Amino acid sequence: MGQVRVASFSVSLDGFSAALGQDIDNPIGVGGLKLFDWAFATRTFQKMHGTGAGETGIDDDFAAAGFANVGAWILGRNMFGPVRGPWPDESWKGWWGEEPPYRTPVFVLTHFPRDPIAMKGGTTFHFVTGGIEAALDRAKAAAGDRDVRIGGGVATIRQYLRAGLIDRLHLAQTPVLLGQGEALFAGLDLPALGYRQTGYAPSGTVAHVILERG
Amino acid sequence: MGQVRVASFSVSLDGFSAALGQDIDNPIGVGGLKLFDWAFATRTFQKMHGTGAGETGIDDDFAAAGFANVGAWILGRNMFGPVRGPWPDESWKGWWGEEPPYRTPVFVLTHFPRDPIAMKGGTTFHFVTGGIEAALDRAKAAAGDRDVRIGGGVATIRQYLRAGLIDRLHLAQTPVLLGQGEALFAGLDLPALGYRQTGYAPSGTVAHVILERG
Repeated sequence: MGQVRVASFSVSLDGFSAALGQDIDNPIGVGGLKLFDWAFATRTFQKMHGTGAGETGIDDDFAAAGFANVGAWILGRNMFGPVRGPWPDESWKGWWGEEPPYRTPVFVLTHFPRDPIAMKGGTTFHFVTGGIEAALDRAKAAAGDRDVRIGGGVATIRQYLRAGLIDRLHLAQTPVLLGQGEALFAGLDLPALGYRQTGYAPSGTVAHVILERG
Repeated sequence: MGQVRVASFSVSLDGFSAALGQDIDNPIGVGGLKLFDWAFATRTFQKMHGTGAGETGIDDDFAAAGFANVGAWILGRNMFGPVRGPWPDESWKGWWGEEPPYRTPVFVLTHFPRDPIAMKGGTTFHFVTGGIEAALDRAKAAAGDRDVRIGGGVATIRQYLRAGLIDRLHLAQTPVLLGQGEALFAGLDLPALGYRQTGYAPSGTVAHVILERG
């Protein structure tokens, strides 16, 4: 059986994984992109979205591992896009253009039903209105013996953590100061939820931390 | 003029710099000592308190720099000891034995007056009831052109941060999970308070982060 996991998810020094003020120009909030500077520099990211060669090394190893053996993704509504409330039309198809990097079924948590969207490259967005457990059931069925990756955002990961449904997290502990934002851990007692730190690999730009449950 | 600074202050992955349940056996709360494992392993710490040779390297360089050019210290009441309320007698003289590592005047914030205590090795504990600014004025006068180090604990550092009175912080960003504890940054917007990250040096066990004001 595959694992349910989070990967390449950054945390600021002051505990935030997204800035405030998300909109179409600021998918991770105003100033939030700098949380992911380490990832943008990697060969893995540049091959997907960039124009440069990208760097190899520890950061790239972790970025690549986040995509390996993933059979389905789960995203929160806000990670899928800036649209709030009922879908006004079918025009919004995610932040990632015609060919998103997922290349698997992607289950988007939402309160508002919408038909699936098949994109180029193997990604299909499915919209799940039945809550986090229903989405996970569908993702596991789609993934088979591969992993389910919970892509984010913060509120989605917090819901799955609180429910004890995530097996493994790879976090990138960054020295970025945001000041305000969406706190990843505030009010969550991770050891009480069964998580312990099992890995640590600093790269020079961030420190990669592995948490596992049980 | 010297700087007002914090040094070798650890933060857990989940944002805490002390565990809960401080008492005479648990000066940093129950389980809190593991925040400082990196420091205990250093030659600097072992020369002061230990029996081993201690390790040299990045961690030791930072630990040693924390003591260099310090002319006075400020400690919160709880960092000085587990006694709460009025001093019942003169018996408590800090966690550090007859010869504390400070070797300078140390100004202890308290609501309850007490006569100074001269210890072996040059440390004198002074008890300041006039608040954080009064303590800083006295510490600066004592330090002359050397630095004032705010030793902690969490509540003391937060008060000085909020007042914009700290020039420089060296934090050790650790992968430790505490689950509960005293949060260092919760509710503080460090960029709005004038702080920015100016240094980053991962050692293999922790990442050393420098914040400076202005």
